[in-house]
Amino acid sequence: MSSIFNGSTLHLSIFGQSHSEAIGMTLDGLPAGIPVDPDRLQQFLNRRAPGQNDWSTARREEDRPEFLCGLKDGITCGAPLTALIRNRNTQGKDYESLRVIPRPGHADYTAQIKYSGFQDYYGGGHFSGRLTAPFCIAGGILLQFLERQGIIVNARILRIANVTDDAPFLASVADKLFPAVSDEASRCMQKTIAEAHSEGDSVGGIVECVVRGAPAGLGNPIFDGVENRIAQLMFAVPAVKGIEFGAGFAAAEMHGSENNDEFCIQNGSIHTCTNHAGGILGGITNGEEIVFRVAFKPTPSIAKPQRSVNLESMQPEILEITGRHDPCIVPRAVPVVEAVAAVSLSDLILRGNDTWN
Amino acid sequence: MSSIFNGSTLHLSIFGQSHSEAIGMTLDGLPAGIPVDPDRLQQFLNRRAPGQNDWSTARREEDRPEFLCGLKDGITCGAPLTALIRNRNTQGKDYESLRVIPRPGHADYTAQIKYSGFQDYYGGGHFSGRLTAPFCIAGGILLQFLERQGIIVNARILRIANVTDDAPFLASVADKLFPAVSDEASRCMQKTIAEAHSEGDSVGGIVECVVRGAPAGLGNPIFDGVENRIAQLMFAVPAVKGIEFGAGFAAAEMHGSENNDEFCIQNGSIHTCTNHAGGILGGITNGEEIVFRVAFKPTPSIAKPQRSVNLESMQPEILEITGRHDPCIVPRAVPVVEAVAAVSLSDLILRGNDTWN
Amino acid sequence: MSSIFNGSTLHLSIFGQSHSEAIGMTLDGLPAGIPVDPDRLQQFLNRRAPGQNDWSTARREEDRPEFLCGLKDGITCGAPLTALIRNRNTQGKDYESLRVIPRPGHADYTAQIKYSGFQDYYGGGHFSGRLTAPFCIAGGILLQFLERQGIIVNARILRIANVTDDAPFLASVADKLFPAVSDEASRCMQKTIAEAHSEGDSVGGIVECVVRGAPAGLGNPIFDGVENRIAQLMFAVPAVKGIEFGAGFAAAEMHGSENNDEFCIQNGSIHTCTNHAGGILGGITNGEEIVFRVAFKPTPSIAKPQRSVNLESMQPEILEITGRHDPCIVPRAVPVVEAVAAVSLSDLILRGNDTWN
Amino acid sequence: MSSIFNGSTLHLSIFGQSHSEAIGMTLDGLPAGIPVDPDRLQQFLNRRAPGQNDWSTARREEDRPEFLCGLKDGITCGAPLTALIRNRNTQGKDYESLRVIPRPGHADYTAQIKYSGFQDYYGGGHFSGRLTAPFCIAGGILLQFLERQGIIVNARILRIANVTDDAPFLASVADKLFPAVSDEASRCMQKTIAEAHSEGDSVGGIVECVVRGAPAGLGNPIFDGVENRIAQLMFAVPAVKGIEFGAGFAAAEMHGSENNDEFCIQNGSIHTCTNHAGGILGGITNGEEIVFRVAFKPTPSIAKPQRSVNLESMQPEILEITGRHDPCIVPRAVPVVEAVAAVSLSDLILRGNDTWN
Repeated sequence: MSSIFNGSTLHLSIFGQSHSEAIGMTLDGLPAGIPVDPDRLQQFLNRRAPGQNDWSTARREEDRPEFLCGLKDGITCGAPLTALIRNRNTQGKDYESLRVIPRPGHADYTAQIKYSGFQDYYGGGHFSGRLTAPFCIAGGILLQFLERQGIIVNARILRIANVTDDAPFLASVADKLFPAVSDEASRCMQKTIAEAHSEGDSVGGIVECVVRGAPAGLGNPIFDGVENRIAQLMFAVPAVKGIEFGAGFAAAEMHGSENNDEFCIQNGSIHTCTNHAGGILGGITNGEEIVFRVAFKPTPSIAKPQRSVNLESMQPEILEITGRHDPCIVPRAVPVVEAVAAVSLSDLILRGNDTWN
Repeated sequence: MSSIFNGSTLHLSIFGQSHSEAIGMTLDGLPAGIPVDPDRLQQFLNRRAPGQNDWSTARREEDRPEFLCGLKDGITCGAPLTALIRNRNTQGKDYESLRVIPRPGHADYTAQIKYSGFQDYYGGGHFSGRLTAPFCIAGGILLQFLERQGIIVNARILRIANVTDDAPFLASVADKLFPAVSDEASRCMQKTIAEAHSEGDSVGGIVECVVRGAPAGLGNPIFDGVENRIAQLMFAVPAVKGIEFGAGFAAAEMHGSENNDEFCIQNGSIHTCTNHAGGILGGITNGEEIVFRVAFKPTPSIAKPQRSVNLESMQPEILEITGRHDPCIVPRAVPVVEAVAAVSLSDLILRGNDTWN
Repeated sequence: MSSIFNGSTLHLSIFGQSHSEAIGMTLDGLPAGIPVDPDRLQQFLNRRAPGQNDWSTARREEDRPEFLCGLKDGITCGAPLTALIRNRNTQGKDYESLRVIPRPGHADYTAQIKYSGFQDYYGGGHFSGRLTAPFCIAGGILLQFLERQGIIVNARILRIANVTDDAPFLASVADKLFPAVSDEASRCMQKTIAEAHSEGDSVGGIVECVVRGAPAGLGNPIFDGVENRIAQLMFAVPAVKGIEFGAGFAAAEMHGSENNDEFCIQNGSIHTCTNHAGGILGGITNGEEIVFRVAFKPTPSIAKPQRSVNLESMQPEILEITGRHDPCIVPRAVPVVEAVAAVSLSDLILRGNDTWN
Repeated sequence: MSSIFNGSTLHLSIFGQSHSEAIGMTLDGLPAGIPVDPDRLQQFLNRRAPGQNDWSTARREEDRPEFLCGLKDGITCGAPLTALIRNRNTQGKDYESLRVIPRPGHADYTAQIKYSGFQDYYGGGHFSGRLTAPFCIAGGILLQFLERQGIIVNARILRIANVTDDAPFLASVADKLFPAVSDEASRCMQKTIAEAHSEGDSVGGIVECVVRGAPAGLGNPIFDGVENRIAQLMFAVPAVKGIEFGAGFAAAEMHGSENNDEFCIQNGSIHTCTNHAGGILGGITNGEEIVFRVAFKPTPSIAKPQRSVNLESMQPEILEITGRHDPCIVPRAVPVVEAVAAVSLSDLILRGNDTWN
């Protein structure tokens, strides 16, 4: 299936290459009657768009989606919704060498092995981070849908390299150019990125996502739990190397009496006193905040010379990647993480009843 | 789909509840002609089976699979392979109260919300860790299949609570009763478990898995990469709260020049000088070792009194879980992690060609 | 996917071979709270079971399903429902020759080509009509479910060889041993079967199915309409060679003004004045009776000598099939057709809303 | 899934409405390295395109596909292939009344029930026959692929209303404007269509498809056989009301000794002496010609006045459909039937091995 996600109800098809005519997505399975606000969608897409600041690639793309079908008068009509973004700023440089001398940390080598030279290696082709733009079209639409159900998805930068933002995550940082909570941590993180950049290097980081207002009972046992779904979709995003829910890896160091979230009654309804489970028990939401964190590796495209191999001559080569790339992908990944959460949760919300009566 | 995993070629259906007549699995999509060695399968299942030692539940089940179909003379015949394990040691105690007073850290509460009292709450029902036994039947068969292709899957305990085994993971620890590499770390880990046990508590840990011999080119872009698949399946295992590949969360702290795996030539073929990617670039194997780590939370069933709520009276309750449970699930989870890797990779290996010529 | 049907909500896994330990099915995706009446299910299964009369094979199997899981106190619990039927009457004769000398009209030859001799050729293996028994377990459960929603599924024998039952299909014939409407046509059909039988031959026929009470709005455009689903499932039944909905092939001979079903108002609600569409427009039910007909070829196993080829020696052979087989499969196929309708429609009914508001 | 077909290897997403910005398709799962000849594709699409002759709608659309991605230098690159066709000739008339007064034989009524007025009712929206154009893009590409494997797919008009073309189907009729075999039958059929047209009426017909050169062993048991797949896809085409394979409904009238295809040796390889099975046994190809026939109902849009109902006032209405429509859809359906066959068979050919050794 590769580039089609078959959820319980939603089906998301992502298509395009970095330098093809267009990239885009089809979202199939949406009920009719869901309004789409194009301005708010554009605002959301702008958070991911490149070329806006110091830590993002200089490739400027407006990332304005063109809707082909699926809407009538701005409202879903029950038919598949397809939108695309034209690639305008393409093939300005020669990528031919990348097929022969693969970039460390990129899919150049594995794509060559798999597709025997037929792959589109311009700009990383179908493996490019640019493919997260259509993902964000789907996510942006579904974030609006969720918000109408009272479900709010917020992500933030938790860490850049060795700088952590310890501030509690109480409100959205979507309006910030650099979406961290603490302004002090933010400055420190940006400085870290700038330093790496000036050295021709890059840094990674961690994005944390919190979902508020999700009802209890979403998700299903074994293969179709909330965690399975979010994880499966999250690794569709380039540079993701880890994901954890609730206490996550820290839970592995805890005792049960510490990690277990005891139940209590608050305002007449049942809650847990803590939330080490990240809002998910047995793959199913328990009504608490859904919390997960995603590890992003540093951008593999760096200016520093690196060792590679010429696949034709089988001789070592020193590779110097020219052009400008994001010295840190993490700030632009924040809305992408929200999009992943939105697709996963909307898919589960749109299912039929789990109890029949 | 919930309890059916639809891979690219393999389809795994897991069925059963902790106290139903039987638990089992159907593996659909296996080609004909694959031999299954029942003795080696039984050895593999024994590594997961309960009741064998101090850190595992006293519930004894032999976990002997009964094959219903799919084999002819011990070789797959192209039809779905179904095997089941009878539940013999069931309903020895009263679980009725669990429906009303949910156990912290378990799916009791979320199952009640979702299934409105119709769920089978005995022993956790379909959410029980016992459902990893049929998963291991599938995994055990596929580990044999992979081994015949020269692909070896090994997992080990990397950490229990705050004790880490720093020894390099060079050889299988499958024969060890406590599957850690360093004997000293092993003793320390077992002591930690025993102490938690004696306090009526439990501990979590981390399992590391290494796959050697996998060819380059397995996995697909976007939604169907090796990481997506392993992660999706891994969260089917109760108590898993995080997964990371290669350097994982540590990569988030690195610079690109440090994390990138440079290419070099070894013995005439292309390799990476390091393996921070965990053998996966762009979702596709690069021929290096596939490495991932899985975080398990501490067993939620503990003897210590815990606060819960009576769902009928909506009054607080103090819950004391009687009976014996694994004070640490991690040792028995090691073969389960191997099974997850085996299902994921076999599914990708059995696909048709990615290049047509 | 082969032996797993992945519907919109329901997932049906069929497993087993004619002479394996057992055959069975897993039905995944059923909501919790649906009662299953085992006696009525058994009555339904008895309609399909072999060995009851003159036109069915002498192989006697009780076809009593054993429920392994998925029910609690006779009500679905939200977990997969698995049931199996033991094969008791197996391997009484030698099927070894069938691998080498394929029976005309059977899957012996194609299975050999596909599975290279590893297939289970005893009794047709996974291709046996016996696999319709687990299909009927799923169907029988879902017929009960549909009936509770006021949806009644009835099938009947419409034709045997050249004998047609022209009587209008107004009430269930499920209680009849030979499920035709007109008693006169029934006698004639039975005589035709008996004559073919006495000549060592077999006959085919047509089954008609009518679904009453299905609401308007079931089914979806393009690939997931009611017709797509029923057709896809119907061809899972051995010997089916054609299917038509409403006027079907006769519609090809009509003018639009004749075939179009005009709309009218009856008792205050909208209906069509005729029902050439068989209750389906654009893949979606319109609230009228769903009507379809299925063509079954004559049983391929006949006593008359037939020409075949020895696949090893590549020499012509004259094959004489011994043992007794159904001289006409059609009477036993009637409940199977109902089962197919029940699975298809239940799957569509259990979906979430198509309009969100 | 609705408008996404998930095959064993190929995934086809169809999107668009009759009057949306564009219609199109994404074909996912194609291996890299498959050439696409755009001129031959265009020739194929022209056979389906409207506005070319007397029996087709006057709406002229060039149906020139624009490829967005998935190709590099005219060869598949392993990434999803997306192509679209702009709708230029749209909204020239008022379809508003169709929402309120549904056309008999169309999906107007069922779409209104399902989507509560949010559906795009212009020109039939997503239910329009125009959506077969993107289907033909996929099919046209895959027909080229099949041809390179020596597999030739040909369809022809077998019947229009009560006129049958009895001529044997030995060679392609793709070059004919009216794709029947016998010129005499062709004239008679065209006369029948013209007469119906002049009366403000329409006629239906039957298309026959023959696939030559398909290897034995394609298709899988139970749900994934060749017949299941072709049937599932065929009912995605508007106006299809029946399908039969080989002898089809006629087999229901035969005796087993007549219908069974005996095996014989021709030129040193195994064949069947007849082909009542239509090349498929047990869902799997046997190496003979694959033969199936598809029944198309008469075009529901006719000029003759018809009774309908005003859904708002709930009063009877006499509907007169203005504008011009195909008086017979069958000639343009011929390439669509070929496209369905091509998608079904290519999907099965691209699977991995069924026997592992």
